[in-house]
Amino acid sequence: MTNINNFGIIGGDKRQLYCGKSAMDDGYGVYICGFEKCDAMLGMKISDLESTMKNADAFILPLPVTKDGITLNTPLSDKNISLDSFFQLAENKPVFCGMPLPFNRDNIYDYSAREEFATANAVPTSEGAIETAMLEYDGTINNSKCLVTGYGRIGRVLSDMLDGLGADVTVSARNLKDLEFIKAKGFHALHISDIRGNFDIIFNTVPYRIFNAHILAKTAQNSLVIDLASMPGGVDFGAAERLHIKAVHALSLPGKVAPKASGIIIKNAVYNIIREENL
Amino acid sequence: MTNINNFGIIGGDKRQLYCGKSAMDDGYGVYICGFEKCDAMLGMKISDLESTMKNADAFILPLPVTKDGITLNTPLSDKNISLDSFFQLAENKPVFCGMPLPFNRDNIYDYSAREEFATANAVPTSEGAIETAMLEYDGTINNSKCLVTGYGRIGRVLSDMLDGLGADVTVSARNLKDLEFIKAKGFHALHISDIRGNFDIIFNTVPYRIFNAHILAKTAQNSLVIDLASMPGGVDFGAAERLHIKAVHALSLPGKVAPKASGIIIKNAVYNIIREENL
Amino acid sequence: MTNINNFGIIGGDKRQLYCGKSAMDDGYGVYICGFEKCDAMLGMKISDLESTMKNADAFILPLPVTKDGITLNTPLSDKNISLDSFFQLAENKPVFCGMPLPFNRDNIYDYSAREEFATANAVPTSEGAIETAMLEYDGTINNSKCLVTGYGRIGRVLSDMLDGLGADVTVSARNLKDLEFIKAKGFHALHISDIRGNFDIIFNTVPYRIFNAHILAKTAQNSLVIDLASMPGGVDFGAAERLHIKAVHALSLPGKVAPKASGIIIKNAVYNIIREENL
Amino acid sequence: MTNINNFGIIGGDKRQLYCGKSAMDDGYGVYICGFEKCDAMLGMKISDLESTMKNADAFILPLPVTKDGITLNTPLSDKNISLDSFFQLAENKPVFCGMPLPFNRDNIYDYSAREEFATANAVPTSEGAIETAMLEYDGTINNSKCLVTGYGRIGRVLSDMLDGLGADVTVSARNLKDLEFIKAKGFHALHISDIRGNFDIIFNTVPYRIFNAHILAKTAQNSLVIDLASMPGGVDFGAAERLHIKAVHALSLPGKVAPKASGIIIKNAVYNIIREENL
Repeated sequence: MTNINNFGIIGGDKRQLYCGKSAMDDGYGVYICGFEKCDAMLGMKISDLESTMKNADAFILPLPVTKDGITLNTPLSDKNISLDSFFQLAENKPVFCGMPLPFNRDNIYDYSAREEFATANAVPTSEGAIETAMLEYDGTINNSKCLVTGYGRIGRVLSDMLDGLGADVTVSARNLKDLEFIKAKGFHALHISDIRGNFDIIFNTVPYRIFNAHILAKTAQNSLVIDLASMPGGVDFGAAERLHIKAVHALSLPGKVAPKASGIIIKNAVYNIIREENL
Repeated sequence: MTNINNFGIIGGDKRQLYCGKSAMDDGYGVYICGFEKCDAMLGMKISDLESTMKNADAFILPLPVTKDGITLNTPLSDKNISLDSFFQLAENKPVFCGMPLPFNRDNIYDYSAREEFATANAVPTSEGAIETAMLEYDGTINNSKCLVTGYGRIGRVLSDMLDGLGADVTVSARNLKDLEFIKAKGFHALHISDIRGNFDIIFNTVPYRIFNAHILAKTAQNSLVIDLASMPGGVDFGAAERLHIKAVHALSLPGKVAPKASGIIIKNAVYNIIREENL
Repeated sequence: MTNINNFGIIGGDKRQLYCGKSAMDDGYGVYICGFEKCDAMLGMKISDLESTMKNADAFILPLPVTKDGITLNTPLSDKNISLDSFFQLAENKPVFCGMPLPFNRDNIYDYSAREEFATANAVPTSEGAIETAMLEYDGTINNSKCLVTGYGRIGRVLSDMLDGLGADVTVSARNLKDLEFIKAKGFHALHISDIRGNFDIIFNTVPYRIFNAHILAKTAQNSLVIDLASMPGGVDFGAAERLHIKAVHALSLPGKVAPKASGIIIKNAVYNIIREENL
Repeated sequence: MTNINNFGIIGGDKRQLYCGKSAMDDGYGVYICGFEKCDAMLGMKISDLESTMKNADAFILPLPVTKDGITLNTPLSDKNISLDSFFQLAENKPVFCGMPLPFNRDNIYDYSAREEFATANAVPTSEGAIETAMLEYDGTINNSKCLVTGYGRIGRVLSDMLDGLGADVTVSARNLKDLEFIKAKGFHALHISDIRGNFDIIFNTVPYRIFNAHILAKTAQNSLVIDLASMPGGVDFGAAERLHIKAVHALSLPGKVAPKASGIIIKNAVYNIIREENL
């Protein structure tokens, strides 16, 4: 990590600010750009694009890096920064971003594709799911009957947290190995093809339509359903509405509920790339 | 429990509705009165005061039962019901309420004074504290450094929940026995006269001014402070403001964050009184 | 703690050695006496009684301090040290011991009577109970159905540990407040007058005869029963034998299973006395 | 599962008896053979080989199935049963066993090669590791500093259990994703190339020589080291001895510490094979 002394943070939301703040606390010089509309700069000063591009040795771009394929994603700025002009100015300096970009270059590194990035984000996602449940559910998580479908990253972290709050936890998974891990935790284990029971809160993490009208009617009549799977999600929301089941599609939780934690996760992924690639 | 077949639920907020709903699910007849402005009656019908007073064998009044000492506390109704007229109509039937009342009568039972009622409410209070922290704090509870002051009912339940979310938990208490229980949990134990450290989130449960300007400056410079102690609380909020420390006085959490759980806790306390008093 | 610089550790078992070792690690001078038959001195040297009495500023005696009321309890020595001669030589120096003694003097302090001492010992007792269960039970604690009777010090610590190993935990208690704490942990709560169910392992902490023939037949037909209550215990061992139920009376566990932890607990209690009494 | 109504359990230790007992409790007919020297038959009767071979529809053989490659592994019998004669008598009936066999046949199924079998066995292995630590360590697991190397099946289950007992848990792993899972649990995470610290108890699960003389000297000077990795293990036991470090190679724990749990794990694996293979 000898060649990079100054980061340019350009565009994005509060996560990027916290990412920059955390790098600054680690001793790096940090240039922040594209945050004119932000009201709380965490004690950092905004730089203009020119000095940022000139002084920074590497750039951290937001997640997603662009929404239109043409300009950088800068929700906290009124200025448009085109991808073309950015990469021209960036020359060959390393650029870290959350893909996808409509093109590729040798100096582009996708932090969002890394396994440890996705795993670390399971924590703010799980807390966001619990926060959503707390806001929407009139009872307590404690002693409620919770179902978590799927035992990947989010399922693992979320089920432990629900257990830690004193919920009665059931987890459904597909493979036998995961079902053994679930049983070892003391949770109820259900094969995903055999979901049944009456639950107070259902958290879906599986990205395909498990909760069709039939399964909703069978398991969720009195439930709050929180779908954490990315679009189109795993819940038939139309059926849920017809059945008067409260269902919430909770997406992009890390940035919403824990921008500080999310920003540090981005920073750590960038550090890992720098170390692995000897940048 | 042979003499009481029908409860009258008069006044209060959503907790009382859930209390009534839960009693109804247990097989009791339930008359609901004083909820004209409520938009979600949980499938129950509103009765008028006259039929409620006539048909019910016992009455469950809200917590607090009155705010002005003259009329029942009926935030979800525009009608005033005077305590005098209520108790005249109630005759000698048992009346369960959350004190204080400006008078006493043989048929009045205070559910809010019971130990198991206070203990059970530590659960929604703790979840409400965590919900507050999640809303106000930009990081995650997981891996944050949390201090809980006091190891009474709330301290015990809250510290376990924070641990269950993966926080790094420190608990301060006064007596040596509690400090041993805290250590046995694997938490950091601090004598309450020796609070020190840098915390991300501080939860105070002790009802006297621990967090004066001096202690705030020493421990909370970068903290979110959530005061759970009843008025006047344990935090010098003026000093917190001067020190730019975000401090929240979170009161009456159970009814706000978990009216269903709170209503069932009221119902359970009423059942316990009925059993103990052979009503 | 200004007046005491050297401790004399006289008599007792391995716990006292660890107590001395830990005090030595804290910077105290430590004189060890009455351990001639011990094979592992933890790197400490044995002193003779005379120099111990002369050089030490305070003495730590074993638990129990005497078994016959006449001599010190010195299981690791062939020499007899009479209480009379010891206290004559001790003059007015502080003497810390685990009672009871057949007399009292102003300079005697009973560490075993302290609340935090009893609480701290709930940890090695609970681990000893689990070790006993692991040795005697052919299944795993994980996913076994465990009953803990009583929710005092040991019940609290032990039930948390069993839960931490993944057991299905039921706790029975007498008072409603404790039952709420038990429910808040996510355990099954049973009033102690209503013990029922089929358990794999039963841990009794209540010092009166709960497990008579009738209750044993109803709950423990296939159980391992571990009685942690002091003599005469809470289990009818004769009835257990007639019913072919394996029952173990596990007593004095801390010293047996964790002499190091037990010795440090003694030391901490002595330190607490010194601080409170300004010795 | 329509074709198999009767199991023959031939050879092995107490695990196989519990496997048979559990199948019997599920309604199967069970023939037990090769247990003449066993003193506790769990209420089952021993059959002779002839009737077992004739009446059983499928056979469950021990783990390992053979030690000499010629005869069945029958430690609880004085009789020798040759593999040849067994398979001749077995004809084409399904044979479930723990490999390796010196030959293969279409009707042989290896339960020990299944992922869920290995995962389920992480539970008795972890409990056995804890039992070993409790027996060998003079302190308590609670509040001891524990290192677990490796975050595979055993590392995951064991670290959770140690945490549940109140230990201060550090886990080392190789890949960044696992390190994030470890952090999410609230444990200390160490990259496996960077093991350092002073630990009370070290549990190794990694099957290569991590704990050479250098690492032992650096981390384990006052530790108990428990090596759970199969032969040759991950600890230089010679170096440990020279350094006066107590080191234990704890192998084949499931069968030793929890034959009942282990037997049920075998049975479940057999059931899974039957279902998947439509036997």
